[in-house]
Amino acid sequence: MDQNSKTRVVIIGAGFGGLIAARALARYPVQITLIDRRNFHTFQPLLYQVATAGLSPGEIATPIRWIMRNYRNVEVLMEEVKDFDLSRRVVKLPEGELPYDYLIVAAGASHAYFGHDEWEPFAPGLKTIEDAVEIRRRVLLAFELAERQAASGNSKGQPALNFVVVGGGPTGVELAGTLAEIARRALSNEFRCIDPRRTRVILLEGGPRVLPSYPDDLSRSAEEQLRHLGVEVQTSALVTRVEPGSVSMGETRLPAAVIIWAAGVAASPLGKKLGGPVDRAGRVLVNPDLSLPGHPEVFVLGDLAALKDENGKWLPGVAPVAMQEGRATAHNIAAELHGEPRKNFHYFNKGSLATIGRAAAVADFGKLHISGFLAWLAWLFIHVFFLIGFRNRIMVMIQWAWSYFTHERGARLITGDTRLPGWDQSQAEIAVPRSKVS
Amino acid sequence: MDQNSKTRVVIIGAGFGGLIAARALARYPVQITLIDRRNFHTFQPLLYQVATAGLSPGEIATPIRWIMRNYRNVEVLMEEVKDFDLSRRVVKLPEGELPYDYLIVAAGASHAYFGHDEWEPFAPGLKTIEDAVEIRRRVLLAFELAERQAASGNSKGQPALNFVVVGGGPTGVELAGTLAEIARRALSNEFRCIDPRRTRVILLEGGPRVLPSYPDDLSRSAEEQLRHLGVEVQTSALVTRVEPGSVSMGETRLPAAVIIWAAGVAASPLGKKLGGPVDRAGRVLVNPDLSLPGHPEVFVLGDLAALKDENGKWLPGVAPVAMQEGRATAHNIAAELHGEPRKNFHYFNKGSLATIGRAAAVADFGKLHISGFLAWLAWLFIHVFFLIGFRNRIMVMIQWAWSYFTHERGARLITGDTRLPGWDQSQAEIAVPRSKVS
Repeated sequence: MDQNSKTRVVIIGAGFGGLIAARALARYPVQITLIDRRNFHTFQPLLYQVATAGLSPGEIATPIRWIMRNYRNVEVLMEEVKDFDLSRRVVKLPEGELPYDYLIVAAGASHAYFGHDEWEPFAPGLKTIEDAVEIRRRVLLAFELAERQAASGNSKGQPALNFVVVGGGPTGVELAGTLAEIARRALSNEFRCIDPRRTRVILLEGGPRVLPSYPDDLSRSAEEQLRHLGVEVQTSALVTRVEPGSVSMGETRLPAAVIIWAAGVAASPLGKKLGGPVDRAGRVLVNPDLSLPGHPEVFVLGDLAALKDENGKWLPGVAPVAMQEGRATAHNIAAELHGEPRKNFHYFNKGSLATIGRAAAVADFGKLHISGFLAWLAWLFIHVFFLIGFRNRIMVMIQWAWSYFTHERGARLITGDTRLPGWDQSQAEIAVPRSKVS
Repeated sequence: MDQNSKTRVVIIGAGFGGLIAARALARYPVQITLIDRRNFHTFQPLLYQVATAGLSPGEIATPIRWIMRNYRNVEVLMEEVKDFDLSRRVVKLPEGELPYDYLIVAAGASHAYFGHDEWEPFAPGLKTIEDAVEIRRRVLLAFELAERQAASGNSKGQPALNFVVVGGGPTGVELAGTLAEIARRALSNEFRCIDPRRTRVILLEGGPRVLPSYPDDLSRSAEEQLRHLGVEVQTSALVTRVEPGSVSMGETRLPAAVIIWAAGVAASPLGKKLGGPVDRAGRVLVNPDLSLPGHPEVFVLGDLAALKDENGKWLPGVAPVAMQEGRATAHNIAAELHGEPRKNFHYFNKGSLATIGRAAAVADFGKLHISGFLAWLAWLFIHVFFLIGFRNRIMVMIQWAWSYFTHERGARLITGDTRLPGWDQSQAEIAVPRSKVS
């Protein structure tokens, strides 16, 4: 078959949904263009390990070209999509256009500040490799600045070192748990003027419990495991203001050397540009077959799509949903090429896992709820197994085994700016009595 | 002994010289402060592997605190030294001063542009982790931009992809050799519109031969090995102008998608602030015991020091010299504490090794000259052995074995800006006939 006569499929985004769709479709006589702003796929479930110096960026990022190297009908383009012209069936790039017969939009989501984008410089979120490196920089730098200040004798005793994580979902929980581990174990022996174990890690959750999407008993278990690791958990804590060096909840102001934002999610702005209905987070309300209303040739997947399961619950923005959606969309396109009808998407929930820290996790397998070491082992093996690239799996396993037994964290590099927003303010006396922050 | 009555030693710089001095001195009853701008030691001999996506930054960088964790009389400070007051024996920091009884300055060197600092944005050098990541970004991005352009059909055929390395010393040679390998092997299968094997890697050396500090026969062997890897070597090529997207030698203008500067070295500006005599590169002309003339309590080591060996030749700016100088200085300070005289420094040259690429290297062990695979094996084992941290050694060995057998390069991340200086210009037709640049 002539390449020009082949069905052209354009896939936007090389996250879990886009990658799986590309791989599944590549078996059919179609010509695929996979577009991403980055040249690499980021294994987002392990981003928090980069943010906490356990893994290097290269260990959770895989070049998209390398993943697709043996699929000769897949072309990878590192490019930013600007807009669409659905009537002419073209994707608009900064220079030129890309025509398609089928379009799959899997552009993902970013973090959101509930209309307070001005908070971002003081409270970075965790969605990209750059975000993770920035959080790592701030966390490690805070210890260095505290040591420097204590050594100079300019402060009385140890400066307050509060790490505040806003948001008690899976990302906030794993960040808070791992930060506490670092302070209590990884760094405990390395400073001469400060004691890193006196660091406070405070997790603020707006709702009544952490991991709100999990069953009640697992939320309670997660909170207990967090406290055991040394995290101060504060629920029903609504953040009303973020400034350099502090977080406020109403009248209560909490000084913070580092603030990390793990609270809100906003879908890619490409969702709105498709012109269809979107929800408040900007996710596209798709048909049951994941197509865009009015445009059966356009599919929307992953964190960018909003779809309910058979019980009327919104599907969560997690990797298994995106992967199953990618596969289903590839099969629907292939079916149509063979003159067969499409099938609606049904999510098969194999269970949910959230890690909390070293040997701490929760797992929800429907009727079976697991906590602690066994859940953590399950989490670890599943995540290493799904890492893309055999080399990455080896490296991550070694890093993990190493830091499990030695408590060391290998990737402790401070790169870039050596200042910290609000560092002076964080030296102010702690305004909240410690007991109020439980 | 009371800590306050201990001899205070301040060491500036945690490169090879400073680290070894700190470790050797820590056995004596002294109080050591080790100051560095970074929180990590960079294993500079492997920086080119980060620049060429073979290793991750975390694999060649080790937290200084971690290295010193068991030396309780060593305090590590992440801080930038501003100046000295030698008469009052204090080091000036941005805030406050640090008094010393002995001062060891091992602040190293950076790259220099022979008075043309305006060339730096177009031709980054390779001295820091950030430099390496920037070079990696440019190299990988050039391939992506070429593919994008070829895919868009805006260019006729494949855009010219020239990588120009300026400087034929050890850094230039290893960079050029490894870049050629990437183009010919690592990426060869991954693009659909361009053929990475048509990349040109051009090494420009101002003198008559590459590796000028090596014996003549090894220079010739290095040049042959470079050509075998696909590098175009041009000697007696004096660069007179660097612009975005091109390098000029007199009237001859060579278009370049990426330019890397490996030509000049300038000592840290801290050298001049010591007030003693310096050479043209800013290196401090030290006494035979490595002390600053007129200040027996101040020592200068490593790339910042200029000292001749017994044959009247300047000692090279390499790790073994810095390490031996660090040890010698520690012993001289310890001797003085015991009322014994100092010894002059004598460099024991165990040989020189330069790597060129996969299975390509040269080794100069005095009467014994080795080239090719054996020299490369020697180079590899010595460099892995001297890497700091057992974990790093394991990780680097695995990465190396992996990429030796698969030709893959794992750390291929483009982070930061997605533009390339002079990319449009690099599309101009090649002004130099290819034969002139061989």
